[in-house]
Amino acid sequence: MVAESGSAGDKETGRVEAFSDGVFAIAITLLVLDLKIPSASPSARLADQLAKQWPAYLAFLISFSFIGIMWINHHRLFTYIRRTDHALLILNGSLLMGVTVVPFTTALLAAYLGHPGQDVAAMVYSGTYVVIAVFFNLLWHHAATGKRLLGRSADMAEIAALTKQYLFGPLLYLVCFGLARLNVTASLLLNVALAIFFALPPKPAAVRER
Amino acid sequence: MVAESGSAGDKETGRVEAFSDGVFAIAITLLVLDLKIPSASPSARLADQLAKQWPAYLAFLISFSFIGIMWINHHRLFTYIRRTDHALLILNGSLLMGVTVVPFTTALLAAYLGHPGQDVAAMVYSGTYVVIAVFFNLLWHHAATGKRLLGRSADMAEIAALTKQYLFGPLLYLVCFGLARLNVTASLLLNVALAIFFALPPKPAAVRER
Amino acid sequence: MVAESGSAGDKETGRVEAFSDGVFAIAITLLVLDLKIPSASPSARLADQLAKQWPAYLAFLISFSFIGIMWINHHRLFTYIRRTDHALLILNGSLLMGVTVVPFTTALLAAYLGHPGQDVAAMVYSGTYVVIAVFFNLLWHHAATGKRLLGRSADMAEIAALTKQYLFGPLLYLVCFGLARLNVTASLLLNVALAIFFALPPKPAAVRER
Amino acid sequence: MVAESGSAGDKETGRVEAFSDGVFAIAITLLVLDLKIPSASPSARLADQLAKQWPAYLAFLISFSFIGIMWINHHRLFTYIRRTDHALLILNGSLLMGVTVVPFTTALLAAYLGHPGQDVAAMVYSGTYVVIAVFFNLLWHHAATGKRLLGRSADMAEIAALTKQYLFGPLLYLVCFGLARLNVTASLLLNVALAIFFALPPKPAAVRER
Repeated sequence: MVAESGSAGDKETGRVEAFSDGVFAIAITLLVLDLKIPSASPSARLADQLAKQWPAYLAFLISFSFIGIMWINHHRLFTYIRRTDHALLILNGSLLMGVTVVPFTTALLAAYLGHPGQDVAAMVYSGTYVVIAVFFNLLWHHAATGKRLLGRSADMAEIAALTKQYLFGPLLYLVCFGLARLNVTASLLLNVALAIFFALPPKPAAVRER
Repeated sequence: MVAESGSAGDKETGRVEAFSDGVFAIAITLLVLDLKIPSASPSARLADQLAKQWPAYLAFLISFSFIGIMWINHHRLFTYIRRTDHALLILNGSLLMGVTVVPFTTALLAAYLGHPGQDVAAMVYSGTYVVIAVFFNLLWHHAATGKRLLGRSADMAEIAALTKQYLFGPLLYLVCFGLARLNVTASLLLNVALAIFFALPPKPAAVRER
Repeated sequence: MVAESGSAGDKETGRVEAFSDGVFAIAITLLVLDLKIPSASPSARLADQLAKQWPAYLAFLISFSFIGIMWINHHRLFTYIRRTDHALLILNGSLLMGVTVVPFTTALLAAYLGHPGQDVAAMVYSGTYVVIAVFFNLLWHHAATGKRLLGRSADMAEIAALTKQYLFGPLLYLVCFGLARLNVTASLLLNVALAIFFALPPKPAAVRER
Repeated sequence: MVAESGSAGDKETGRVEAFSDGVFAIAITLLVLDLKIPSASPSARLADQLAKQWPAYLAFLISFSFIGIMWINHHRLFTYIRRTDHALLILNGSLLMGVTVVPFTTALLAAYLGHPGQDVAAMVYSGTYVVIAVFFNLLWHHAATGKRLLGRSADMAEIAALTKQYLFGPLLYLVCFGLARLNVTASLLLNVALAIFFALPPKPAAVRER
């Protein structure tokens, strides 16, 4: 029924976006639950106890940036995507499942950074990002192939540029994942670098696309 | 007052959908709180400790899929439902109450799977799904009977097909519920199979409906 | 600036409603965090342990119904309210503050029901409802007096009927509050009765209003 | 692509607002998790135990007011802001990161008020408000300079008045921050005074602007 009218079809996308926005917003806000109140202690100064929690702050910052950037990109894709189908809903749901897991992997990283098992925690952490980035690409690939779910007037060159650009995500997080096994610090530094890189303004060509 | 104008009526449905989207999005995201960080231990490897938590991951996966699929179907119904009345709001509220309970029943299943009491936990788990599926049917039945809350142009054959299709939900979850008493593994396997089945693309006729 | 154009004014109300919907949806979903997983115990059967938690289920049911009904009524008011001003935002914020406190008072009631201190817990519980109902009336009074924030075409008789109807809320919850001091069971029974009463279909006159 | 058409540009802002509303709504509702249920104790009366938690209630009230007022102001800015760009998304994300941290700093203040370390807790608390207020100003400055992201018809005098008005935020919270080092009580009193001050109706000129 929805497919019969353009306006109802827009509404369809609208609700997928609203649901996705909700999940992104909740997941990004739940990250704060990973910051713990130090238990009052007569022997330790609060400032020192807070300072000792730096792994939690670092993990919070990387994860907040990651989810925020994922949201910006999700948002950008849906300025192109005009229709939904069953596969899009399933792929979007899988992407969101990955996003909701981030508060867990963040807490895991914060708890184990600097302790035995930090390599496993960092691999789980970056591994989740690999999975999310893969689903992000699958979603875009499904929507964009033959303009299946895009507007007819969408610019082919722009679409190809986005497709190419998004392919880097899984590869870069795969490097983070592999690095975590060899050197946790290097893996996290790359994670931080990626967060900063993606937060920088896009290059002029990309600006035009937006 | 709202009933007097079509556009205000649409807005009425819009806010019910927005509220429902919010509850679905929060319930599905709260599931992550059921994934626990293993306490650091010198004798156990983190990878092993994480692997031992498989019941929590399994419960998370089934519940995420269930809520996601419920959302897709809720969303589909509201492409047909154009007006609200008091009974719809109450039935929708009852449905949402069931959905918000899922993070609790998921945590219960994760905590007891493989321990004494797992049959009770699995019955509570599937029992909640039975209740949700029943309210889903009551909601649709209330809205669709005599096209009470649907648009006038809604296709009778499509409506009848949806009505028939949704009746399977309560029956299938009732089987899960009964199986849980006899064999918890079989009950969960059926739950997984249902999640996969509902995530598969609908059959061609259903595709046309959407 | 917003006040200059009708369409921008509608958007203003829209965002207040969206924010309120978010708070209502989150508060109602957080109630599930008050349902606790019984700790595995070899000597007690899980079914018995779950059954012993009836105060938590009762408190959950009453609170879910209360927040749900508050949402329905908030929603109804905003089909009349067309504009916002500073006082409306502050009154709405105060109402929402009361709503966000409900998961706390619910957990308090669930923890103390059947134990010493249950009268205090029940008074805090019903007292919160009194405060919420008072802010609800203040909000409506502010918006409706002289049709300050309503559409010009709003029916005076309907407005007067709503004003009269909503006055009962604070009074009834004040009775719950007082009863809690004398007899906790009676207070909770009245709370349950109120939840059922408000969930029943409105009387014909009210049906027409909606 | 979005920049090409006015309507798509509005939709762009709409989704930023929806995401921001979600984060504000969740952060303000998560504050309730900082209110703890006193453990049942035969020797202490519940009323006394609840009364002893006044720092938690005070911190809850200030934080709820702060986030609520931030939301009102965010909302007000976006009645002027019509377009988005990459920098706006990053600045808005940074602002939201500050907002999501508030439930943590609130819990920290509630836990340490009246105990050693309360000065550090109060500095972290007010320091977060300084950071949020700074990002708020950066966001507005970016959007308003040369009307970069505003509508063409926006009134220059109104914009200048808002710019001037918002500059007080960081300064006032910087005073709270400094006071926390000298005298925690004075710092919190100023925090309460600011919450009340911002909740008062704006002065006539500001009323016209809205």
